[in-house]
Parts: sequence; structure tokens; C-alpha cells
Amino acid sequence: MSKKGKLFLMVPAAMVLVAAAMITGCAQSSTGPPGLSITREIPENETDSAVWGKYYPSQYSSYLKNKEESKTEYGGSVRESKLDEFPYLRQLFAGMGFGEDYNEERGHTYSLIDIREINAKRKPGGTCMTCKSTEVPGLIKKLGVKYYSMPFDEVSKLVKHPIGCLDCHDPKTMALRVTRPAFIEAMRRRGKDVTQASRQELRQYVCAQCHNEYYFHKQSKEVDHPWDNGFEPEDAEKYYNDKKFTDWIHPKSGAEMLKVQHPEWEHNYGGTHYTAGVTCSDCHMPYIREGASKVSSHWWTSPLKTMDQSCGVCHREGNDWLKSRVLNTQKRTQELLDTAGNDIVVAINAIEKAGKSPDVDRKRLADARNLHRRAQFYWDWVSAENSTGFHNPQGAMHSLGKAIDLARQAQVAASQAAANLR
Amino acid sequence: MSKKGKLFLMVPAAMVLVAAAMITGCAQSSTGPPGLSITREIPENETDSAVWGKYYPSQYSSYLKNKEESKTEYGGSVRESKLDEFPYLRQLFAGMGFGEDYNEERGHTYSLIDIREINAKRKPGGTCMTCKSTEVPGLIKKLGVKYYSMPFDEVSKLVKHPIGCLDCHDPKTMALRVTRPAFIEAMRRRGKDVTQASRQELRQYVCAQCHNEYYFHKQSKEVDHPWDNGFEPEDAEKYYNDKKFTDWIHPKSGAEMLKVQHPEWEHNYGGTHYTAGVTCSDCHMPYIREGASKVSSHWWTSPLKTMDQSCGVCHREGNDWLKSRVLNTQKRTQELLDTAGNDIVVAINAIEKAGKSPDVDRKRLADARNLHRRAQFYWDWVSAENSTGFHNPQGAMHSLGKAIDLARQAQVAASQAAANLR
Repeated sequence: MSKKGKLFLMVPAAMVLVAAAMITGCAQSSTGPPGLSITREIPENETDSAVWGKYYPSQYSSYLKNKEESKTEYGGSVRESKLDEFPYLRQLFAGMGFGEDYNEERGHTYSLIDIREINAKRKPGGTCMTCKSTEVPGLIKKLGVKYYSMPFDEVSKLVKHPIGCLDCHDPKTMALRVTRPAFIEAMRRRGKDVTQASRQELRQYVCAQCHNEYYFHKQSKEVDHPWDNGFEPEDAEKYYNDKKFTDWIHPKSGAEMLKVQHPEWEHNYGGTHYTAGVTCSDCHMPYIREGASKVSSHWWTSPLKTMDQSCGVCHREGNDWLKSRVLNTQKRTQELLDTAGNDIVVAINAIEKAGKSPDVDRKRLADARNLHRRAQFYWDWVSAENSTGFHNPQGAMHSLGKAIDLARQAQVAASQAAANLR
Repeated sequence: MSKKGKLFLMVPAAMVLVAAAMITGCAQSSTGPPGLSITREIPENETDSAVWGKYYPSQYSSYLKNKEESKTEYGGSVRESKLDEFPYLRQLFAGMGFGEDYNEERGHTYSLIDIREINAKRKPGGTCMTCKSTEVPGLIKKLGVKYYSMPFDEVSKLVKHPIGCLDCHDPKTMALRVTRPAFIEAMRRRGKDVTQASRQELRQYVCAQCHNEYYFHKQSKEVDHPWDNGFEPEDAEKYYNDKKFTDWIHPKSGAEMLKVQHPEWEHNYGGTHYTAGVTCSDCHMPYIREGASKVSSHWWTSPLKTMDQSCGVCHREGNDWLKSRVLNTQKRTQELLDTAGNDIVVAINAIEKAGKSPDVDRKRLADARNLHRRAQFYWDWVSAENSTGFHNPQGAMHSLGKAIDLARQAQVAASQAAANLR
């Protein structure tokens, strides 16, 4: 039997071992003070990940790698301005915070620093802190829904730790658990009780509770998710339309716009890996060898940086080829993203021009504005998602094809409105 | 070791065995007259596959399965009218044969019947017989380039067998070989001598010699391929533009159009399977077990009909899941195909209307026509290809996104031309 043959065969067995190691591995690999019972040492509401780190030094050490800033071909963890990289974004997000301040996100350990430093226009309330600090679930328990509508700066004073251990783990058992109420509630409306989820489900839910599309209730500023009809962009669009929901009015086109937020969960839901039973953790938290044991990495970053561990467990074709396929998907996606983005700018300008025309066809102008809203929504569904199409290659390209069609239709409608050509 | 584990391990070994069986298996599995030397019995230019079948009954028996007519979700081998299934095709191909007569293709054994029965407008010369009969390479040798420009009906009288054994095999050694001069010449211009190709290369070239995009030289009607710049649609478009090549003038838009022909080879070239080293034959000609030996199937059809043999050799996830992923790709592709197709109809109508306007902006009208040509080319690159995107999912969606953008631009240009709005 060749070495390669053996490796091939070992995959299923290795996966079982890894899974077992991840269930029990934390306690086993602890190098905490001898004689102490680990499960009693971490207080129920311990929000300081450094305290957890004393008992789980390997996991904590990988968690600290989230401080690293490094780029990938189509993303990365360096705080660079997306507005400079893609100038059309300034036009698309005119009149709202993202048009002034929109950076590539850094690692989870920067979540608190970065949310504090971002433009105030992007923070309408304490609600914006919801996924930025491990202390928030405690705050919500203490303050109730009032938390969401508190001024951001007031909430900011109440927290001091970024995303950390308590967000996903029970400190007594290390079991995975979901801590964000909005996710639990939105999934409940879909008939899924996530508090009763299997461990494999939780290996995506703990990520999905924050990596998703959300909106704020207008009055209470409570976080909510548009999933009542399903996870496709068409489902979310219908949800928002039925609620007559609008994030902001575009100052040039006058359209009632929607801003999409990082729908990683929704994208991934229909993608190849998800449907094959692969979870977020399988790729983004691969096991790392520590002496004789294996622990799951808590460095949440692009799997392109950990291909041996993230991809190599299932795919045996070699990193060069695998990476070429990932980049092929991302290149194609970025090209259509740019086409759609630039087309929407053209539409915005056409609508603005039509709006200034004295004998404009008002009804057709309204069509054009609605088409702008729709086009940008389908574009943003891919643009705001952090994989440049990889999580769902066909879904992403489909959304972008639709965005292009709608953007150009908006342009046509605007021209017709201006010329009263209908 | 579990049975599944064993199967998993057996894959690479099985592939080697299959390859070996395909090299030598034909002779081994022969049940021809005892005592006869097989390699001396088939004459050098034997065009009747039934004669080959006496010595290779297993292969011939699978070849005869090409007579079966059955459907898949997005294709199949039943001669149904595509014009009825997708009514917009009549608009797109107005003024040329495909707009009057355009059927789903049947199996290779029907090639001669079907080409004879198709609308005469689609057969400008003997050249159209080039990939429809196994007798054509002999005719070209005998008649020279004159063959291509002979009237179709005249060439038709000279042949009596459809696609068959001699198209791909040397009757003495059973080795694979390419027999279509245009493919050999176009590949030579790309620096590739296909007469010196490896067996694995030939396992795609023998298919690629006919399953490709081609055009006819205007005077000689000789077949040629637009590959001098590469295999992407952008490469072919540049090639045609540089030659100022046009297939027909669209009667409604007045655009100088290109008709794309089944570019399976070009699509597949950039796709996941091709880049992983998988050939056409691996999926479309999987081995079938015949008693103690294995022979490669000569039933050229959708691998969705032979998933155990075609997909299961490498993919172990089970047919239900695999098929759901294939259909996901095809569904997404078909949706954008329909969007693009219908958008082009809108553009055609807008251009026709603009063309009738007395004070039309002629320069802008020319832009609109060129955009129509381009949009339909990128749409047809996917539409004419026989996998509904499967051979290259991202490439197909990228072409269609581009087609949608160009079609709507054509509409905009036409509106502007009509209104003199520029």
C-alpha cells in the first residue's frame, strides 16, 4: 500500500478522531494548575478570555493569532479601506456610513477596537455592539431589550473584552452553545430549536449567530434576521418588502435602499461544502497538532492560510491545484461584482438626471428607483459576504447576474422616465 | 477494514486497471471467430462499425445503446424542438436556419439521419457533414479541400455510416487517433502536435475534434477553429472580430451576428474536472464490467445516466447528493440563460424600433447593433454548449453575466439612438 493510499484511506478515520479530540480535547490538553478541577475554575459568566486561556493554553494561543494582520488575494485581515480599493462603493453607499468609512475587517480580537473607531453614522445604537463583545449576552440578560436602543457610546463604556470564549462555550462543560438571542428567535420562527441542536449543527450555529444578514427593528433597535421565507436573497428581499423596510434613502437616486450585512451563513447554506455536511469549523477551525494531542484552531481566518489542515483533510489534489480553483471562483466573482457595482453607479446617475428633468414620468421614475434598490441588494448580497463567492459559487454568480440585469433595467427606466418615452 | 473503506482505497488502483483494460481490453474481450488474427481482420479504412463489432462485441453493443432516446433534467437524447421549449430562440436566430429548426441532439448513431433531415438553410455545404459520418476523413483524403464546398446533398450521397469506430481508432492497433484535419491544424497553430499526444490527451482530443466551436472559411467552406488567442469566449470573440467574421445579419436588429456551435471542448478546458486531469472519456465512457473483464462504454450520453460508473469512481458521497449538486449548477445556469435570452429579445426589439426612427442617431445605432452581436455571442457560448453549465460552472455564469450586461447596454444604446439622447 502506498503512503498516499494509506493517507487516502485514513481520511474517514481521521475525521472521527478529530471530532472526538474536539469534544474532549480541550480538557485533555489543559496544562492548568495540577490538582485543580478545570470544570470548576472558570466562573459561569467569565468574559475575559485570558482567564479561560490559563486552562486552555493551546486554544488561547491560537486565539491570540487573530491579532495577525495578513492579506489573501481577495480578502484578508488587514484594516484597509474598501472605498479606496473599489471607488464605486462611495457612490453606492452615498448618504450613509459605509460610503464614508468601510474597511476590510480584521481578526476577532480587534472587534471592540474597530467598532469603537468606525464612523459614528454606522452605529445607531448599542445594538451595533451585539456581536462585537463577549460581554453583550450578559448585558442583554441584565438590561433586557433596552440594551439595543441605548446610545452606542454608553454601551461601549460597559464592555472591555472583544469576541471571546464565552460567546460559544459553556465554561463548565466546554459544550458549544448559541448566545445571541436574535439568532435563537429567528431560527425558532423557522421551526428550529437551536438550544437542542446537535454538536455538528452547533459547529456552524456558533459562527452563524453573528455571521449573517440582520436588520434592526425601527423603534427598539432590536437585532432581527430576515429568514422567515428562507435563506436565499429572494427570500430576504420578499421579507424586507413585506415589512416595507428601508435602511436609508439614496441621496442621488432617491431610492429606498437596503444595506446587506455579511450573510456568510445564508450564502454557505446552499453551497457545496454545507450541503456535503461540512461546517464552518471544519475549514476555519481545523485541528492543529500539539505534541501527542490535537486541538481545534481558534484562529478564525481564511482557510487559504491553513490549507494543509483546512482543505487537505478531505481534498488530496495538492494545495497548488486547490488554491487555483478557489482563486478561479473568486476571480470570476470579483469580475461580476465590479461589473454590477459599476452598472449600479451608471443607473444612479441616470436616475438622478431623470429626477431633475421637469417633465419626468413620475411613475417610470419610481420604477427606476425600485430597480436601483433591488439591483444593489442582489449585488450587496455577494459584496458584503466575506468569501468573494467561495461559500456558494453558483449562488453568488446568480445573484450578480440578477444585479446586473436589474441595474441596467434601472438605467433604461430612468432614461425612459426622463424622455417620457414609455 | 470496512467495505466502504476498501472501495475508497481501491480507487487509484482501479483507475490504473481500467486504463490498462482500455488499452488492451478490446482485444482480450473479443469473441470473434476463433483462430483469426483480430488485428489483420479490420481493413484500414473500414467505415462500417458493424464490421468492427464482430471483433469487439462488447464495445459495439454499448455503441448501439446510442440509439436509445431518453431525457435528463436539462438535456437528453430525444429529438425535441428547442424552439418550442425556449420560444425566445426563434427571435434570437431569426433570419437563419436555427430560428426555424433547432432540436435537442440525439445519440451519435443518429448523426447521419438527423443532419439529412435538418433544414437546408443550416447546411451551406458538404462541410456540414464533417463530423456526422465516419466516412468523411476518407472523403477529404480523396477529394481534398474541394470536399468542404461541395453541395451538401452531393456529399450526402457519398456516405452511408454515421459517427463510428474509425473516427477515433486505428483499426490495426486500436490506438486512439484524431481524424479531423481542422482540429489538428488549429491545435498546430497553438503549438500542439496532436499526432504526438499522450493517450490521456487523446482521451479528450478524440471527442474535442468534433465537440468544439468552429466556423467555415467564407470561400472554401473549410472548417476552422477560433483558438489562436486561447479557449475563452473573449479569445474567440477577438479572433472573429480581427477577421471581421459574420455568420449572418439579424433581420430585425441589423446586427452582424455570430452563431456559436457546441463549444464543449473550450468550456471544459477551464473547468474543475479538466484541470483535475479528468478527461471526457472518464465521465462519458466509464468502464463497464463484462464478466471478468472491463471495457469502456461507447454509449456517449449524459453521465447522469451512468453515475455509479461515471462519478462514483472518484466521488464517494452517493448519487443523490452528487446529482443534487449537478442540478443546482444546471438550474442556476438555465435561469441566467433565460434571463440573458429574454434580455436580448428586448434589445433586438429596441434596436428594430430605433432603426425605423427617422431622426435616429446612426452612430449610436451602430453601437447598439455591435452590443447585440456581443451579447448574443456570450449567451450562445453557454446556450450552444451541451452541459447547461456543468463543464465549467463559473465560466458559464461569467459569460452569462456578461451577456446580460451587454444585452441591456444594447437596449440603452437603442433607446438613446432613437431619442437622439446621447
